[in-house]
Parts: sequence; C-alpha cells; structure tokens
Amino acid sequence: MSVRKQPVLGILGGGQLARMLALAAAPLGVNTLVVDSAADACAGQVAPLRLADWTDYAALEKFAAEVDVVTFDFENVPAETAHWLAERVAVFPDPRALAVAQDRLAEKTLFRQCGLQTPAFEAVDTRADLDRALAAIGAPAILKTRRLGYDGKGQFRIKQLADADAAWAALGAQAAAHGLILEAFVPFERELSVLAVRTREGDFRIWPLTQNWHTDGVLSLSLAPAPEVGALQQRAEDLARTLAERLGYVGVFALELFVKDGQLLGNEMAPRVHNSGHWTIEGAVASQFENHVRAVLGLPLGDTSAHGLSVMFNWIGDLPDAAPVLSTVDAHWHDYGKQPRPGRKVGHATVCAADAQSLALRVAAMAQALKRETQAEPGLSALS
Amino acid sequence: MSVRKQPVLGILGGGQLARMLALAAAPLGVNTLVVDSAADACAGQVAPLRLADWTDYAALEKFAAEVDVVTFDFENVPAETAHWLAERVAVFPDPRALAVAQDRLAEKTLFRQCGLQTPAFEAVDTRADLDRALAAIGAPAILKTRRLGYDGKGQFRIKQLADADAAWAALGAQAAAHGLILEAFVPFERELSVLAVRTREGDFRIWPLTQNWHTDGVLSLSLAPAPEVGALQQRAEDLARTLAERLGYVGVFALELFVKDGQLLGNEMAPRVHNSGHWTIEGAVASQFENHVRAVLGLPLGDTSAHGLSVMFNWIGDLPDAAPVLSTVDAHWHDYGKQPRPGRKVGHATVCAADAQSLALRVAAMAQALKRETQAEPGLSALS
Ligand SMILES: Nc1ncnc2c1ncn2[C@@H]1O[C@H](COP(=O)(O)OP(=O)(O)O)[C@@H](O)[C@H]1O
Ligand SMILES: Nc1ncnc2c1ncn2[C@@H]1O[C@H](COP(=O)(O)OP(=O)(O)O)[C@@H](O)[C@H]1O
Ligand SMILES: [Mg+2]
Ligand SMILES: [Mg+2]
Repeated sequence: MSVRKQPVLGILGGGQLARMLALAAAPLGVNTLVVDSAADACAGQVAPLRLADWTDYAALEKFAAEVDVVTFDFENVPAETAHWLAERVAVFPDPRALAVAQDRLAEKTLFRQCGLQTPAFEAVDTRADLDRALAAIGAPAILKTRRLGYDGKGQFRIKQLADADAAWAALGAQAAAHGLILEAFVPFERELSVLAVRTREGDFRIWPLTQNWHTDGVLSLSLAPAPEVGALQQRAEDLARTLAERLGYVGVFALELFVKDGQLLGNEMAPRVHNSGHWTIEGAVASQFENHVRAVLGLPLGDTSAHGLSVMFNWIGDLPDAAPVLSTVDAHWHDYGKQPRPGRKVGHATVCAADAQSLALRVAAMAQALKRETQAEPGLSALS
Repeated sequence: MSVRKQPVLGILGGGQLARMLALAAAPLGVNTLVVDSAADACAGQVAPLRLADWTDYAALEKFAAEVDVVTFDFENVPAETAHWLAERVAVFPDPRALAVAQDRLAEKTLFRQCGLQTPAFEAVDTRADLDRALAAIGAPAILKTRRLGYDGKGQFRIKQLADADAAWAALGAQAAAHGLILEAFVPFERELSVLAVRTREGDFRIWPLTQNWHTDGVLSLSLAPAPEVGALQQRAEDLARTLAERLGYVGVFALELFVKDGQLLGNEMAPRVHNSGHWTIEGAVASQFENHVRAVLGLPLGDTSAHGLSVMFNWIGDLPDAAPVLSTVDAHWHDYGKQPRPGRKVGHATVCAADAQSLALRVAAMAQALKRETQAEPGLSALS
C-alpha cells in the first residue's frame, strides 16, 4: 500500500460558507486551507487558516503551492487576484465567471442574452445618467452599486422621482469606483432561487427551487421545495444550464429570481454556494456544499433531490436561544462560531419534515418558543 | 452585544471517532481540541491537535485548562489518566463507567446484574485456570484478553479442548498484565447492537437496533433498522437504560449483542460512539456524533428516529474506488484521512433508501461496481 496524499481545497475567504464547505469536504477525504485577512475568520475553527489580504502576493504564492484547487467563499475577491491565482493553480469557478457575477450590469446583460428577462435597468455613472435612467424606467426604482453590494448594502430605494437627490447623496460617491445601476422596482409575487451545480465535464444538476423572504434586503427565511412552481422548475433549470454552459461554469451557483405575472425575472447570480441553499445540508440527498466540493475536485455529483420539505431561518446579528431549536424534532442548528454584530449572518436553523402539514406544526411551535413568529409567518402562509 | 466564548470539547484520542465528533460539534458552535500521541492523527485535519501521551501530565494539565468538557475517542485511555483529568475538568462519560467497559469481566458481570444474559464466562489468570474454565464451559470457546482488545485482537478461538495449549501460547503472556477471560462460543442467529445516549439530567434515548456482520472479528457491514426485531427493540432499550442509570452514564454508548434462540446475550459495551452507529450520520434525524456532543455539553438531545433504511460498509485496510459510491443515489462516502494499513479502519460508506427493496437494489449495484459482493451479501440476504 503506497503513501497517499489527500487533495487540498483552497478557499478564498473564511466566512460561514468556507466553514460549511470545509465540513462537507472532510468526509470526502479532501482537506481545506482557508485564506482570510481576519485572524478570527470563523472557518479557521474547522480548517487551517492563512492570514493574507487579496493583494499579498507573497502569501498567495505560498497558498497556491499548498493547494490543488482554489474556490471562493467570498465573491468579491478582486478579479486581478483571481486571475493571478488561475495562472498558478486550478481555480473554479473560472475568474471570468466571477467577473460577470461581480457586476450587476454584466450579469443582467448576460441573463437577457440567455433568455432570462430582468427588471428594466440602466447603467448610471453620473448624476445626469440617473435623471435619464429615471425618466426611462420611472419610479419606484432601486439604485444599486454595480459591484460589492451584498445583503441589501449599497442600495437606495427611489419611491418617487423627487428621491433622486437623496439617492445620489447616498450612492453617488461610489459611482466612479464601482459604477451604479438603476433597476425598476418589481412588485413581485414571490422570490425564488435556483441552486445549480456543474462539473468540469459538463454534468449539470439543480436542486428543487427555493422560495425566499428578505427583511431589509437580507435573507430571512427560505422554504424548499418552493410550493406550486409548476413549469417554473423546468424553466429555471433550462436557464441555469444555458447560463452555466455559456460561462463554462464549474461548481455551485445560485440565481436569485423574482416571479412577476407568473414569469421568472433574473435578479442576480451568486457564483458560489448561497444562503438560500443551506437547507440542502439536511433537506437534500447531497448538499450544495458537498456538490460544490465534488464539482471543483472533479468528482461525480451527488443527487440533488429533496427529502421532504425544509424551512430555513437565518439568524442575523445575534443567535437566539438554541434550546427551542435543539428540542424540535428534525430541526438542525448551525452556529457559525462568529461574534455577534448587527446585520451579521451568525447562524441558521433548518426544520425538516416529510409533509407540509407536519412542517408547519414544527415551524409554528418552534417560532413561538423562539418568539420569532414574524420571521416564520411568510413560510407558514406558503405552507398552508 | 457581549463577546461570546464558544465551549471547547476536549477529546482524548484523535482517530476517526474524534474526527466525526468534531465535524458534528462545529454546527453546534462547539469547538474541539484533540489530544493524541501521533502527529498524523486523522482528527487533526479538522480540529486542533495537541501531541501528548496518556502519562504526559504537563501536557494534559494545559489541555484541561483549554477545554470545558472532556470525552473519549479511545476507550482504553488509562483509568488513572481519566480520573486525574476528572479532578480538573468535567469528564463524560465518568471514568468509573469507562473502567467497567475496559474490562470484559466487569462488563459481563454488570450485564448480568442488569438482567442481560451473557455467554458463559470464567476469569482466567493462570494456565490451571484455563483448564478449569474449559472444563466448566466446554468447547468451542473463545479466550480473550480482559483489557485492551479491539477489532478481534487479543482473542483465540478454542475449537476443541486440545487447543488449550495453543490458546495459552497465544495469550498466556498477557494474563498477568491484562487478565484473560474464557467465553463460551455462541452459535448466534445474528449480531445486533444498540446505540444509546443519556444526558446529565437522565434523558435517555436509543436509536433503532442495528444488525452487524463481522469478518475476522472486525465489523464489515451494518444494516439499520435491523429487520424483524419485534420485542427485542424494547428489551434492548430497557436493558440499555438500566445499565446507563446504574453507571450514571453520560453520552453515547453501544451494547454489542448476540441473538441466540431469539434472546439477547450481551457481548460487550463500548463507552463511546461506535462503528455500528455510523449509519446515523445520514440515516437518522440526529447522529450518534451529534447526540454525544449534545449530551456531554448539557444540551437537549436530538431525535433518534431513522430515515428509511441504511446499509454501512466498513473500509478496512485501504479505501476502494470512491466513484461507484459517489455515483450511487443516497450513498455517502466517509474517508477518514488515514494512511492505508492492513486491518486499519480507513473509511466507510452508507447507502440509504426509503424502503428495503430500493436499498437492496442500490446496495447490490454499488457492491458489484466495487467488486464487494461478498461484503454486501449478508445485508442483501437480510433485506430480501
Ligand atoms: N428590482 C427590485 N425590485 C424589487 N425588489 C428588489 C429589487 N432588487 C432587489 N430587491 C429586493 O432586495 C433584495 C436584495 O437585493 P439584491 O439585489 O439581491 O442585493 P444583494 O446583493 O444585497 O442580495 C432582493 O432579494 C429583493 O428582495
Ligand atoms: N463468545 C462469542 N461467541 C461467538 N462469537 C463471538 C464471541 N465473542 C466474540 N465473537 C465474535 O467476534 C467479534 C469480536 O469480538 P468482541 O468480543 O466484540 O471483540 P472486540 O472488542 O474486538 O470487538 C464479535 O462481534 C463476534 O462476531
Ligand atoms: Mg441578492
Ligand atoms: Mg466488539
């Protein structure tokens, strides 16, 4: 028997996504090495952590030599860094796909090229552009930074045309560095996301569609499989496949979708595992984390079917009391090992059941014990 | 929001059990610190590892100061070390329970006190004892070391009375240090194990009984829930509870049982998570690893129900090709990150399905692709 060497997966960014990727990699015999600039990055509790920022090429050179494949916890790694690494080691997804997903203008343009409609949008680089865009799109609308926005940050909601000055005051300073985009505000019926995965060989799968609810622009609750999606499941699969093939995408990605008049509109693409897919850890045969590791390492994909139904609660800012979750049948607690901080994603819990009625009972009882009825409410309505 | 400090679980021994405990602890927000004397102990790939042997009290003193609770990956930690630690930090299970489980004579005596019958047995300390014991028990019988045996090591099968000399030649040298025990060989109908967990407050649960098959004394295959156990499930639960209460046991333990004439006989007790419970990772609502962490940390227990049925294949010596497992629906690969070595437990795979027929189809196809038909065979017979 010869000495074996285990593959090492390098992850850029050491947050909860890296943490859950590392936990999924271990049973596959894949070791993880994380790079982050913060010594207390929470993935460092479960995998070795190298301290470096994205322009510390000396540290990145050493990192590249230690790993077999590089992937991302953090989608806003500078494109330059990603390209530089890709010259030294296999990087999945490809930095070109990352670059598209980093730019709301590029991603919406691509969506349309792939046949996925989007809210009306206009690029905004100057104050005059904003007026022109508002005239074209009308109010209500949302002004967003093209790059680096997340969890609703870098957005300003324009309720009426007179809000243009306030919008510019809030985001105009970022126009030069990151660019801005004005989007029509969509009074959607609901928000869905599709989690998809593609291998190096082009094998492609999606999980059942997930329905999502946001509070202040941050994901609050997910329900999967999204109820009564009908033909939207196949439509989302076709669109996601087209997009993935066009980008030569390898790994897991998410498309955030609005449903308006029963049709899908593309909101954004996350070139990584995604918060709305956390339910797959217990609620699907193979989780998004496991399949991402499999895809980037060149292993066969796991089955993306759901076991029954799942509701995921996001814990933002601080963790609630764990006991009501730990005491709920088939509820699963995920503490990311982070310090509390307003607006920060610090954990989640997934409640599973074989059918909608049992799930609703569990979720309602747990939410009451947690005093989180408001958070649970849209999920309970959708289940009833 | 105040600064939080996460609890730290110390684990004595850094093998695959510690590794899977650490992976289960992380989502609970529990960090792990492992002690082992081997720098390449496989749990060190997923948790920080302190190098020390069991008598390095300087290192153990530092370890005790760094952790909140101590538990075991390795049941043969010297009783002295366990007691010494228990004076400094909470240790679960209690070192007294560990001491009983370390000694085949003490554990079989306890089984009988709790109403669990055992194979006939006699203590053997000298060559003359062996003759007396053989005269009492008859052949076939098994001579075992009282302490430190595992995976069929430290055993000699006596087929006929004339084998006494050979048995003594094999194990007599260990009589003085570890003691020996002679057991009647039981021509059992089948082997079962019960995995049980008890909290500090006395909350007690068992998972469905598991059926096990051994090859050369090492676990080869498990099937859970064990088919057609009838009243044995309740009987095993009652016995396990009685035993746990008498020992004041906290955490997960396993009882290895023989079924003879439809009755349970106690073979041995493992005072820790157990190889026959690995199927609970995917096959039960809460795994043995998660519930052990919950119990020793003082958290509420998770549900021990099974999802459908599971078959676990043990990988001994070297890993087979992963691809057939990764390509089987609802099959789960567990690579422990160890170097191959004859007789070593290097990984396992669990195949799950909603019903016996689907499981049999998956297991048969996978076993064929792996050329492991012989290993799968007893499970397939039990499923048919
Ligand atoms: N054009 C829009 N119309 C309606 N709601 C929107 C629009 N854009 C964003 N939102 C709401 O805000 C949330 C966050 O916006 P998004 O563009 O996805 O930014 P982030 O990158 O922060 O997730 C969306 O999930 C949706 O609920
Ligand atoms: N008394 C016995 N009668 C029949 N088979 C036995 C007996 N003792 C052990 N065995 C077989 O050997 C296996 C391993 O023995 P065990 O005593 O459990 O040792 P270990 O500590 O190595 O697991 C058992 O699971 C069983 O298959
Ligand atoms: Mg979004
Ligand atoms: Mg045994």
